[in-house]
Amino acid sequence: MSDTANKALLPTGLRDVLPPDAALEAVAVNRLLGVFAAHGYDRVKPPLIEFEESLLDGVGAVTTKDTFRVMDPLSQRMMGVRADMTIQVARIATTRMVRHPRPLRLCYAGQVLRVKGSQLRPERQFTQAGIELIGADTPVADAEVIGMVIRALDAVGVRDVSVDLMLPPLVPAMCDALQLSPEARRTLRDALDQKDAAAVKAMGGDVAGVFGVLLGCIGEAEEVLSRLQAMDLPAAAAQRRDTLAEVIALVREEHPAATLTIDPVEYRGFEYHTGVSFSVFSRGVSGELGRGGRYRAGEAQERAVGATLSVDAVTEAMEPLSSGPRVLLSVKDRLLAGRYQTDGWVTLNALQDPQDFAAEARRLGCSHYSVGGDLHAINDKQG
Amino acid sequence: MSDTANKALLPTGLRDVLPPDAALEAVAVNRLLGVFAAHGYDRVKPPLIEFEESLLDGVGAVTTKDTFRVMDPLSQRMMGVRADMTIQVARIATTRMVRHPRPLRLCYAGQVLRVKGSQLRPERQFTQAGIELIGADTPVADAEVIGMVIRALDAVGVRDVSVDLMLPPLVPAMCDALQLSPEARRTLRDALDQKDAAAVKAMGGDVAGVFGVLLGCIGEAEEVLSRLQAMDLPAAAAQRRDTLAEVIALVREEHPAATLTIDPVEYRGFEYHTGVSFSVFSRGVSGELGRGGRYRAGEAQERAVGATLSVDAVTEAMEPLSSGPRVLLSVKDRLLAGRYQTDGWVTLNALQDPQDFAAEARRLGCSHYSVGGDLHAINDKQG
Repeated sequence: MSDTANKALLPTGLRDVLPPDAALEAVAVNRLLGVFAAHGYDRVKPPLIEFEESLLDGVGAVTTKDTFRVMDPLSQRMMGVRADMTIQVARIATTRMVRHPRPLRLCYAGQVLRVKGSQLRPERQFTQAGIELIGADTPVADAEVIGMVIRALDAVGVRDVSVDLMLPPLVPAMCDALQLSPEARRTLRDALDQKDAAAVKAMGGDVAGVFGVLLGCIGEAEEVLSRLQAMDLPAAAAQRRDTLAEVIALVREEHPAATLTIDPVEYRGFEYHTGVSFSVFSRGVSGELGRGGRYRAGEAQERAVGATLSVDAVTEAMEPLSSGPRVLLSVKDRLLAGRYQTDGWVTLNALQDPQDFAAEARRLGCSHYSVGGDLHAINDKQG
Repeated sequence: MSDTANKALLPTGLRDVLPPDAALEAVAVNRLLGVFAAHGYDRVKPPLIEFEESLLDGVGAVTTKDTFRVMDPLSQRMMGVRADMTIQVARIATTRMVRHPRPLRLCYAGQVLRVKGSQLRPERQFTQAGIELIGADTPVADAEVIGMVIRALDAVGVRDVSVDLMLPPLVPAMCDALQLSPEARRTLRDALDQKDAAAVKAMGGDVAGVFGVLLGCIGEAEEVLSRLQAMDLPAAAAQRRDTLAEVIALVREEHPAATLTIDPVEYRGFEYHTGVSFSVFSRGVSGELGRGGRYRAGEAQERAVGATLSVDAVTEAMEPLSSGPRVLLSVKDRLLAGRYQTDGWVTLNALQDPQDFAAEARRLGCSHYSVGGDLHAINDKQG
């Protein structure tokens, strides 16, 4: 992105992905969706734009400010360019595929656009890839989705993955049990969001006691769990905690070495989640690789779990592709392209036979050339 | 698309691609781009939107009426949602990659949007996949691109492909030689576009004579070529004809059985082409599978040849995917998913163990289930 000509050419936050990055992204998407498909997730592809009512409906409302809008000249209604695909896939599951047997497993990949980037991430176009598991109510479903993300990242060679688990409904459940006023809830929410232990303490009484302890419960999953299990939580909150414990045990059974952490009071960005939620990170990559969790889909409020991976972040964590050896073919030898390709070569046709095949091959990044059916190495250390 | 609920949900010409069509499309894109990559075409990925000046510049002007526009809140400049990727890839080649060695081979795939569909094709979102060969001046280059399209379609199993070759600069070259007035050119162009032999004849003189013959020159490539070669064409036109003959001979050398036809006066939709152009069809699919030809790229007017495939039309011509056998795994047996997948199974985890595994497997479209590590067939003819 240091090319100044290009900066003048493209709007802020939008970019041309060049070789070899574009190929790496395509490989990432293919491998991720390959893992999903092997687990019975069927691919769907919603359109890039649709009526804003359906795009910004329900949980989609959080993307309202992010969404580009255009007038549909045919219907004279406003359409939005999608800022997120999750909402579209939930729409498909609960409308067009409403009669398909549950649990319904769907996967997707595609581009999304945002009106503005953030200061940290100026990008305005992203590649998403994800899964939705619709009509699924058991901890096995939550564990499946979390496990699927771990597997998919493993399939693209992303190492040192950590899954940070959250429980967005826990704090509201405890506020209910403590019969907190709306104002006290807001004060508490702010304090928790800022991890401000002093502000929590200042609230005094039961609130200060129990949330003070919860605020300190951050870290390795099994350790935090045992501390949560030692707490005398109100019934609704205790049930949430027990579900989380069950999900973690199921994930652990499949992925004994996975790095799992818990932050039970984290909430920002997960407001519409109704159960266990998670963010995924990898050492060496700033920002999330993906996120997901339990929510309700569509008008019928079907129980669902999903996960979305940010393919841009995923490719940042991937090794570069190793490109195959390249051979320059003489005009006549272009007829042998298929044979070379079968043997793993990338072939480049000469568009006219050069005087110096070796020099031309070198110029085009080839290690070999083929003339009269014979393969020649160019004996170049750079080749 | 007979789903009435969906018609209400989505704007005209936009649709949800459901299973198994979305997976088929992804397979098509992967295979097409695999063929391109094997021939040294490097993938690029331009953004979905960019400033309208760059999008609608030069040859992009033909998409002006098709292009959705949005205001960029950051720059307060108008941006367009791409209606075609060719222009973007040419932009990349001639700006950001201007210093890369020529010939430059680039490939791409992605979504494009159009403001309105046509009466014949109401669709407003398309998947394009294509190649651009930039800085290439020889008939070998034209033949490479045409041959690549034939190979790529073969790789996705599309049979009965025919390539219809055109020569858009031929008629202008002959008009120049005959020193036709602008008005006579327009009359002739209309008559040729409508294949109106009577109107051509009515023009009288040399025009009626030579274009009357040309208008009849439609059909199998080598046959038309020999008729064109028998004509006493003006020098500039004769040179065009000889280049076409050379391109066809080169394509024929690589694809002896290919169906090649020539329509030397066809022009519509190829106005910006500067040499041999082509449309690709397949028996049984209405409309083009793709098109391409020679043009000039960027401000420096670099010589280039390209081809774009309409993936939507390509998938119409493809055989459906054969899906692997599906097995329902008990909650415990989900730990064996990887092993089953290695053996070619698609695995579905039970989210809780059903009372009747066979019935549950059948309900979910599985032919088998696995409990206690044992694989069971459900003995169902539908399985």
